[in-house]
Amino acid sequence: MKLTILGCYSATPRAFTNPTSQVLEIKNHMFLIDCGEGTQVQLRRHKIKFNRIKHIFISHLHGDHFFGLVGLISTFRLLTRETDLHIYGPKGIKEVVTLQMKLADSWTNYKLIFHELQSKNSKLIYEDEVVEVYTIPLRHRIYTNGFLFKEKEGERKLDIGAVEDAHIDQSYFRKLKQGFDVENEEGILIKNELVTKPAIKPKSYAFCSDTTYNEDIVPIIKNVDVLYHESTFLEKHENLAEPTKHSTAKQAANIAKLANVGTLLLGHYSTRYEGLNAFKEEAQEIFENVELCEDGKVFEF
Amino acid sequence: MKLTILGCYSATPRAFTNPTSQVLEIKNHMFLIDCGEGTQVQLRRHKIKFNRIKHIFISHLHGDHFFGLVGLISTFRLLTRETDLHIYGPKGIKEVVTLQMKLADSWTNYKLIFHELQSKNSKLIYEDEVVEVYTIPLRHRIYTNGFLFKEKEGERKLDIGAVEDAHIDQSYFRKLKQGFDVENEEGILIKNELVTKPAIKPKSYAFCSDTTYNEDIVPIIKNVDVLYHESTFLEKHENLAEPTKHSTAKQAANIAKLANVGTLLLGHYSTRYEGLNAFKEEAQEIFENVELCEDGKVFEF
Repeated sequence: MKLTILGCYSATPRAFTNPTSQVLEIKNHMFLIDCGEGTQVQLRRHKIKFNRIKHIFISHLHGDHFFGLVGLISTFRLLTRETDLHIYGPKGIKEVVTLQMKLADSWTNYKLIFHELQSKNSKLIYEDEVVEVYTIPLRHRIYTNGFLFKEKEGERKLDIGAVEDAHIDQSYFRKLKQGFDVENEEGILIKNELVTKPAIKPKSYAFCSDTTYNEDIVPIIKNVDVLYHESTFLEKHENLAEPTKHSTAKQAANIAKLANVGTLLLGHYSTRYEGLNAFKEEAQEIFENVELCEDGKVFEF
Repeated sequence: MKLTILGCYSATPRAFTNPTSQVLEIKNHMFLIDCGEGTQVQLRRHKIKFNRIKHIFISHLHGDHFFGLVGLISTFRLLTRETDLHIYGPKGIKEVVTLQMKLADSWTNYKLIFHELQSKNSKLIYEDEVVEVYTIPLRHRIYTNGFLFKEKEGERKLDIGAVEDAHIDQSYFRKLKQGFDVENEEGILIKNELVTKPAIKPKSYAFCSDTTYNEDIVPIIKNVDVLYHESTFLEKHENLAEPTKHSTAKQAANIAKLANVGTLLLGHYSTRYEGLNAFKEEAQEIFENVELCEDGKVFEF
């Protein structure tokens, strides 16, 4: 998986920082997660081909997470996109995009398919041959979901030398990759694990923004390789976290620890702070493996 | 008047160009004209104090002229603005802003006053002690207005030496500035023009974007000091201008010539062209006094 941070600050875009948006690439599938104002410009700056985005996931309808969506949809139209575009987001997202299209007396020349979310439980909302996407119900001021991206178990790899030595006909390779034992040319049953190697362990990524501290999400994100958890505030402003339904860096680290994740990514920083190091330091008091998101940063895992 | 071009390209924002937005300053009054995506970032880059903007004029509801509006309105709220904000734009603008506020479960802590426009004739839509703003009905794919900003006639200036020599009491200064003749201390009537100088000639600015070539606007913008007229295309793409309801640089120049304006500003360039010089060259074949808008450029007149 390759994660590109297009924007990772809370509240409003500024001259040199951007509101939330991320691109997650999984085996050539490209998913856009949230779409604050200016996301289309960030996509251009990072040379991400617009046409490769077929699925957009919007966590909630606060402006810093979706005011760039309608502009992006319009730009797709101007670029004469023909590929279907699927949008997953809270109920209401279809109405607001549709109204703006109607007022502009325009519509898309590609298929725009809305998948409106209303459930308060974690649901499988997308699946293809390589990945599943589940919602992560978050606790914020308005209806909000995080998203869990889980790679599917891949096929076992053939150990070509061993396969040849065992005299297995090529027509059985498919079954071997799927994990079955097969007969060789002499009619002897060959144990799968003698001629194949395990599939690469599937990766998982959980995006959790915006949310107050909420241990209910721990079972859903248990053991993920990478967790992005919002950390709007430092500890000295913990008193602001609960009323605004945001989290501190320490709270994010607590969730990471409880869920036993591989790496914790911090983001959605309040723009009141100078510099980001304090976020990392505070989180590391609780959970060691912490990385700071920054606009333009790329994480591969 | 001081005009700051925040963005002057058509269609979508790109890495280094911005869609339409301008700030017009008239005697400390600040007017925002159009508000494409990213306008709030451009305002920050050009260090324009958000709180000084009290009136926003939106020409039409195509995305490149208004997708930045709702973000700006939200930012004003986050900055705890208290000053009233007046928005002038086509019918529908209130509904779309209101819907987005509703979906975000938020509202402004300042007064947001919409002035929805529907008339197809030029109307006075704003007036204060120094300026009048009129709509300029344009011909585009959807309902569109340009805006004419006219400074009011100022007061005459006292010629202090002449006033003293004529023995005029200070209590008459106000009347002198207003153009009246007054009696001096000896009871003699003093002709106004002997002791005052004419007011500075009031300036005017006309903003015309987006529009097809339309001579009907000429009487409305006659003799303005500065005319911004869109020039989406060069002459070689004139065939695209009429169906898309845009203009070429030459057509803009023709309007400038017919209206006898002081200076023509070109903008709303299609992003298909490399460089802008051809726009100026083609316009100058018809009208000499042409300037090219560029993002960040400031014109004082």
